[in-house]
Amino acid sequence: MNYYSAPIARLIDEFTKLPGIGRKTAQRLAFYVISLSIEDASQLSKAIIEAKKSIKYCSICTNLTDQDICTICKDKRRDASVICVVEDARDVIAMERTKEFHGFYHVLHGAISPLDGIGPEDIRIKELLARLQDNSVNEVILATNLNIEGEATAMYITRLLKPLGIRVTRIAHGIPVGGDLEYADEVTLAKALDGRREL
Amino acid sequence: MNYYSAPIARLIDEFTKLPGIGRKTAQRLAFYVISLSIEDASQLSKAIIEAKKSIKYCSICTNLTDQDICTICKDKRRDASVICVVEDARDVIAMERTKEFHGFYHVLHGAISPLDGIGPEDIRIKELLARLQDNSVNEVILATNLNIEGEATAMYITRLLKPLGIRVTRIAHGIPVGGDLEYADEVTLAKALDGRREL
Repeated sequence: MNYYSAPIARLIDEFTKLPGIGRKTAQRLAFYVISLSIEDASQLSKAIIEAKKSIKYCSICTNLTDQDICTICKDKRRDASVICVVEDARDVIAMERTKEFHGFYHVLHGAISPLDGIGPEDIRIKELLARLQDNSVNEVILATNLNIEGEATAMYITRLLKPLGIRVTRIAHGIPVGGDLEYADEVTLAKALDGRREL
Repeated sequence: MNYYSAPIARLIDEFTKLPGIGRKTAQRLAFYVISLSIEDASQLSKAIIEAKKSIKYCSICTNLTDQDICTICKDKRRDASVICVVEDARDVIAMERTKEFHGFYHVLHGAISPLDGIGPEDIRIKELLARLQDNSVNEVILATNLNIEGEATAMYITRLLKPLGIRVTRIAHGIPVGGDLEYADEVTLAKALDGRREL
């Protein structure tokens, strides 16, 4: 016997599809939705479809935006000589939060991962190369993740850009701020040692 | 500066309102929604508004249903002489999962809680009394939660029903199956001892 009436069961199923949402959480969310006012429920419902419908890729940096060109690419005060390459739109937000970077971004939407069948042509590397044609960019900072796929992607892009005479840099490996040496894995610690700086 | 474009920010805000969903999870969910196909996104969006619109209270037991009378109340094979009183529609599901109860339910939609300003008239006790008028019910099982509010509610209903000559029972306190005596709190253990049964 099915314990839930059909609309609730359907909503629970839909919530279960979301990442990190298990059956129990989906049930709690579904019952919460039912307890909402009709206005609040339709606001949630609309926000989902609106976000999906209106969000597209920035025609310059391929970041997510609801306009043709994203607010960052539109910002004339930014330094056009530096491009920071990240894997994901979320990484742009993370970088912006530091308030330390004032150049432009390029979002790859993924990383090279032969095991998952993702090659260089599946991510936005072509678009990055096109942006570098006019020689206005002096430095490309590779801020892909510090895992195997991110490193492979950084390596691949480095080999493409070096011959163009562009300075290519990589964000630093090391011990996180507040991190304990004792609990750092040996690879990170070795990288931190290797990347030591004069004081 | 606002890092997200407006539709994403709005969706994240909407997700943050859901119970147990923090800012980080809301961000992950929002980006997941954007990565969905337009069909999948509109399915999720529709499920929310459909569930909210079509779900109402069963006119007999006040359980959530998309019909006038819920499937449990419609089931002629069930034992009409027993009513199990629960706080919440989710508790009906929990009871049904045991497959041990074959009577009908009554959903109170809350419990008496003077601290939260919830009195007997704020939950569906009146409706329960109305159902007991025709003398077809022999037993009312009180399956409200085993916390202060649930106990207070059970106590209140007991005092109302006893004078009507209806058998009123309460689900048992005790050590959960698989539970360790060592880790049980002393109140539970005392209740378990008190409720011991002949073997």
